[in-house]
Amino acid sequence: MFIGAQVSLYPMTSDFVDVILTGLKGLDPYRNDLRIETDDMSTLMVGAPGPLLDAIRDLFAAAARRPEHVTMHVTLSRGCPGEPDDPSCRCETLTRAQHQPLDQRQAEARAAVADAPVTGVGIDVQFSLYVLGQDRHMDEIYGCIDFLKASGTFLRSKNFCTRLRGDAGAVFETVRQAFLRFGPAEGHVTIDLTASANSPSLR
Amino acid sequence: MFIGAQVSLYPMTSDFVDVILTGLKGLDPYRNDLRIETDDMSTLMVGAPGPLLDAIRDLFAAAARRPEHVTMHVTLSRGCPGEPDDPSCRCETLTRAQHQPLDQRQAEARAAVADAPVTGVGIDVQFSLYVLGQDRHMDEIYGCIDFLKASGTFLRSKNFCTRLRGDAGAVFETVRQAFLRFGPAEGHVTIDLTASANSPSLR
Repeated sequence: MFIGAQVSLYPMTSDFVDVILTGLKGLDPYRNDLRIETDDMSTLMVGAPGPLLDAIRDLFAAAARRPEHVTMHVTLSRGCPGEPDDPSCRCETLTRAQHQPLDQRQAEARAAVADAPVTGVGIDVQFSLYVLGQDRHMDEIYGCIDFLKASGTFLRSKNFCTRLRGDAGAVFETVRQAFLRFGPAEGHVTIDLTASANSPSLR
Repeated sequence: MFIGAQVSLYPMTSDFVDVILTGLKGLDPYRNDLRIETDDMSTLMVGAPGPLLDAIRDLFAAAARRPEHVTMHVTLSRGCPGEPDDPSCRCETLTRAQHQPLDQRQAEARAAVADAPVTGVGIDVQFSLYVLGQDRHMDEIYGCIDFLKASGTFLRSKNFCTRLRGDAGAVFETVRQAFLRFGPAEGHVTIDLTASANSPSLR
């Protein structure tokens, strides 16, 4: 199994380099657990979903604690058949989920969101979950949407994606649960996610 | 068939509202052909792939003609089983592609990129193509990657995505061809795309 993300932080300010450096400090606690490589368009992070989603959350929360409008784009992927197996990506939740019916996975996902840490940073997210290589992929999508609606972070459905709103802790836990508990445990699942904070449109 | 995109423009400047308004002027010629709705996170565009990708290209090219660093995120989708049929999304290329073998689709895609208009705006793109609801989805992905490598806009492969570089005309034509000619014509295909221009990392 290979799990990782391509992550880009977009501060809407002429001081964007400074905001990006503030965000990168949020990654420091995770540098031993993740492989992190940056180029001119995005930062690759490879590792288990525990540190991976925590790192993405803390990167964005650190940037969003500043007053400037900031957004982030994340391409998350697990189980892509074109990527090599990587032992550092092993995930107990995924292994267990393989043998659980949909309603049990939904219940555990809701419990995980309820237990999420509170960061004190309110954010907006919209994301799409893709279950690849399976004929009945929409069953898992609809099961995931039911979970999202009961997660406490659901804002509304949009064409092609779902809007979440809330504390960065609960919102990124919701995303992690969607990523891990829906679609086959050994399958290829991806998420296309956009986060936003301090938008002047909401003032 | 329902075809559309959620599009967000991210100018890395404190004048971001002004850059976004410049970009939006690029959409004006397409307002009769597309349904366009904006909220605080993204702009929904629904319509046939001809005007849809032209509009996305011209939105980004208009913003990128200014000197500021600007990025864009696009979630493209066709054939999502959860969306209603929309006659305005009808696409001759898709209908024809249904009966064509892979090598013919690759050849027509290369020809379309060679014929793309030149905008004079150099851009970088990275994107992922997802073919949903099909057991052998990686065959179409590898077929698409072969086309990308021969497209003239290919820069390199990355984990989870492919980098393109070139004139906005050729780059967005490459994306449109990937979107239309790979994966089943009646199937559910999505693209997760990030574009960048005027990045200080490349200076």
